[in-house]
Amino acid sequence: MEFSSRLLEAAVYEMSQLPGIGKRTALRLVLHLLRQPTSQTQHLVEALSTLRQDIKFCTKCHSISDVEICHICSNPSRVQDVICVVEDIRDVMAIESTSQYRGLYHVLGGKISPMDGIGPQDLHITSLIEKAKSGQINELIFALSATMEGDTTNFYIYKQLNGVQIKTSTIARGIGVNDELEYADEVTLGRSIINRIPFENAIKG
Amino acid sequence: MEFSSRLLEAAVYEMSQLPGIGKRTALRLVLHLLRQPTSQTQHLVEALSTLRQDIKFCTKCHSISDVEICHICSNPSRVQDVICVVEDIRDVMAIESTSQYRGLYHVLGGKISPMDGIGPQDLHITSLIEKAKSGQINELIFALSATMEGDTTNFYIYKQLNGVQIKTSTIARGIGVNDELEYADEVTLGRSIINRIPFENAIKG
Repeated sequence: MEFSSRLLEAAVYEMSQLPGIGKRTALRLVLHLLRQPTSQTQHLVEALSTLRQDIKFCTKCHSISDVEICHICSNPSRVQDVICVVEDIRDVMAIESTSQYRGLYHVLGGKISPMDGIGPQDLHITSLIEKAKSGQINELIFALSATMEGDTTNFYIYKQLNGVQIKTSTIARGIGVNDELEYADEVTLGRSIINRIPFENAIKG
Repeated sequence: MEFSSRLLEAAVYEMSQLPGIGKRTALRLVLHLLRQPTSQTQHLVEALSTLRQDIKFCTKCHSISDVEICHICSNPSRVQDVICVVEDIRDVMAIESTSQYRGLYHVLGGKISPMDGIGPQDLHITSLIEKAKSGQINELIFALSATMEGDTTNFYIYKQLNGVQIKTSTIARGIGVNDELEYADEVTLGRSIINRIPFENAIKG
């Protein structure tokens, strides 16, 4: 792609550094900004640079926050001795939107993935183990994605907890609500049979 | 979607104002920026704001340029009396990459589209008619997209040229090179039969 303007080329290049955005899409986005009032670009630019400079991570759960301790960790009405372990803030938002969970979170900031060069030391695992060892936590719920990396991370943390008196659980894997059996993959369907639950529990929910 | 951080929410909102980027994608992009070094966000922000503030449009062809007259219009070795009429700079880049065209361009900045509230007065049509009337132009090549809006725009300009001694042409529509006939749509195939060209011309190309 040859550009008639170095300013345009630079903007397209920077935009195409974002994941899933190729050169063509980047050009489309940048040309869109040029057609809109200057204020739109200003707002975008200000929002991004303010975010990057002023963003804080909650010192307790490592989630993104505008303050030192996020509104979930600082909420006294949340259950204080249950921690849900998640990968990033998107998972916190997804679980919060279910309104089914009243405990706290611990954001790892990723999962162990040797392929991407991410080891346990790159994640917030040490602080999680410390919390678990403090004796104030009753249960850890692992809510990582059901991939090899997710399972590896779960297992690594589980091993680190060796000897610590704490309940651990993982979110249920199975057929989605409203899903048809015939379209489910065999692994999921197999797991949902192995991990079947008493019918009385199911109708309670 | 509920955000734990107003800074994050603002950045996601501004990002999702871009075309084809929904809230979820915007969140993914913004979280990506947060994981990368601050310098990446700085470079993006600087490139976008410099572009928006300092961008110039060539006073002759209305294409995006860093200078008053773009490098195509100011190139004396280009054919000066042929103008290719296009919608935006992406079309200029696409045609330039073929290396088959040595004339000049005229960027309309869009096409007539009543549905989107774009009328002839929103496009650079007046300056095109003036060029055509100046007597220094021999041929206008319409290279707009083959849609209803493109055809309307072509026709509007053609009517405005009423009485002006100038050759007009439109780029050939037909089956793409290397395309199979059976997968072509009927309209294109039909047009390619009506507008067939002498075989001698085809083998010359």
